[in-house]
Amino acid sequence: MGVVVVTGVPGVGKSTVMGGASEAGYAIVNFGDIMFEVAQSEGVPDRDQMRKLPVAEQQRLQRLAGEKITSMGNVVVDTHTSILTKRGYLPGLPEWTLRAMSPAIIVMVEATPTEIAGRRAKDVTRQRDVDDVATHQEVNRAFAAAGAVMVGATVAVVENHDGRIDEAVAQFQDLLS
Amino acid sequence: MGVVVVTGVPGVGKSTVMGGASEAGYAIVNFGDIMFEVAQSEGVPDRDQMRKLPVAEQQRLQRLAGEKITSMGNVVVDTHTSILTKRGYLPGLPEWTLRAMSPAIIVMVEATPTEIAGRRAKDVTRQRDVDDVATHQEVNRAFAAAGAVMVGATVAVVENHDGRIDEAVAQFQDLLS
Amino acid sequence: MGVVVVTGVPGVGKSTVMGGASEAGYAIVNFGDIMFEVAQSEGVPDRDQMRKLPVAEQQRLQRLAGEKITSMGNVVVDTHTSILTKRGYLPGLPEWTLRAMSPAIIVMVEATPTEIAGRRAKDVTRQRDVDDVATHQEVNRAFAAAGAVMVGATVAVVENHDGRIDEAVAQFQDLLS
Repeated sequence: MGVVVVTGVPGVGKSTVMGGASEAGYAIVNFGDIMFEVAQSEGVPDRDQMRKLPVAEQQRLQRLAGEKITSMGNVVVDTHTSILTKRGYLPGLPEWTLRAMSPAIIVMVEATPTEIAGRRAKDVTRQRDVDDVATHQEVNRAFAAAGAVMVGATVAVVENHDGRIDEAVAQFQDLLS
Repeated sequence: MGVVVVTGVPGVGKSTVMGGASEAGYAIVNFGDIMFEVAQSEGVPDRDQMRKLPVAEQQRLQRLAGEKITSMGNVVVDTHTSILTKRGYLPGLPEWTLRAMSPAIIVMVEATPTEIAGRRAKDVTRQRDVDDVATHQEVNRAFAAAGAVMVGATVAVVENHDGRIDEAVAQFQDLLS
Repeated sequence: MGVVVVTGVPGVGKSTVMGGASEAGYAIVNFGDIMFEVAQSEGVPDRDQMRKLPVAEQQRLQRLAGEKITSMGNVVVDTHTSILTKRGYLPGLPEWTLRAMSPAIIVMVEATPTEIAGRRAKDVTRQRDVDDVATHQEVNRAFAAAGAVMVGATVAVVENHDGRIDEAVAQFQDLLS
């Protein structure tokens, strides 16, 4: 199969869903970790310094991280389709990263906005949070779709609903088999 | 005008809508047929063998099919924006195919998910089917949008509602004129 | 920061929201104006003639306009993510234009479809208009997302709701700071 990218907004339960990957013979890596390993091998001392590098330099590191991941064989990559910053939604899988990794599948772990907002703040769930999660998931879908057209990857949605984690894990393992 | 791509989920009534194309002076071709013609000319005996070729080889055939279509002048191409596979939604119009065809318009034939589910199974329409159709159409829109930005094609929606096929055909013919 | 692209459907109040840009030290330019300046410098007499140029020639002018904008430093670019034509939604920011401008942020000014339809026609707001605006905004989001993945720009939504223009301007200025 090769590279399977797994994405999802914070609180959706991505790590739990990915749990079944080792059983299916896949290594699990975090994109940010691999990028930092590449940076370290070039003398960058810590993640803070990495984030302060010029944009072109960060893009080069993302590309190298993608190539390193491709060389790993069957691997599940834990990453984000977009990251919410003060300047809006930043693509976590921009074109150059996607081309370097050339994933076979882009998996989107999703739940309802109400479920996600609830998991993030067990006490109070505000409508505002629910709206923000809905927008974030919508942006993620659009970013993933654009990336899929670029590299020819499939896009798969794994639904991780409350009280039905086993179904989500099974659905994910099916994709890998 | 050149190449006009027509897409839509199974059951939406794409063929009926495209019916008016010949009248408007357009040839109608099926992307898969053209791709197989190219493959045959290189000695691939049947479609099964074609589907088993290495991915890079299939991409080369898709590119050649796109170039062949471009050389046909005014042509309507029957194809899919995405195909639902066991690994998720596969782009039917990945970047390399789109660039080879360079369509002027990407037409999306749509209906409501309930209408489509109903057309597929006249007897029983399950909510699950309706949800799946809604997701498939949403993925198609996102894939088509990404492709349009790559090649500068317009994206047009032709609505093919129950009992209003004439309107859909007329709307499609307007796009070609 | 560099280039910040501001988009939105007609009637959403884009110009008002952009008003705060000069205060923040940004020049405001209109993409179409810059493109015409480039065309004029090559002897094209008026905008009508420019629109009649062959597609490849228009693409070259769009690319040159993008490069000119990039050379301007901190600049807010007034443009459209898509333009509704008789052939469907035409990408206003196709790939070649985006790559030439390499924006840091793609801002989408949005309001509810009902608010926008109401602003366009103060007297009567028809459901049909509301539906069209909803589709246009949806297409814009998808086009913007595809562009963002190509160039690594962030996508930010500025909501410009009735009676809350100050919030919209402040939100936009925050993005620039």
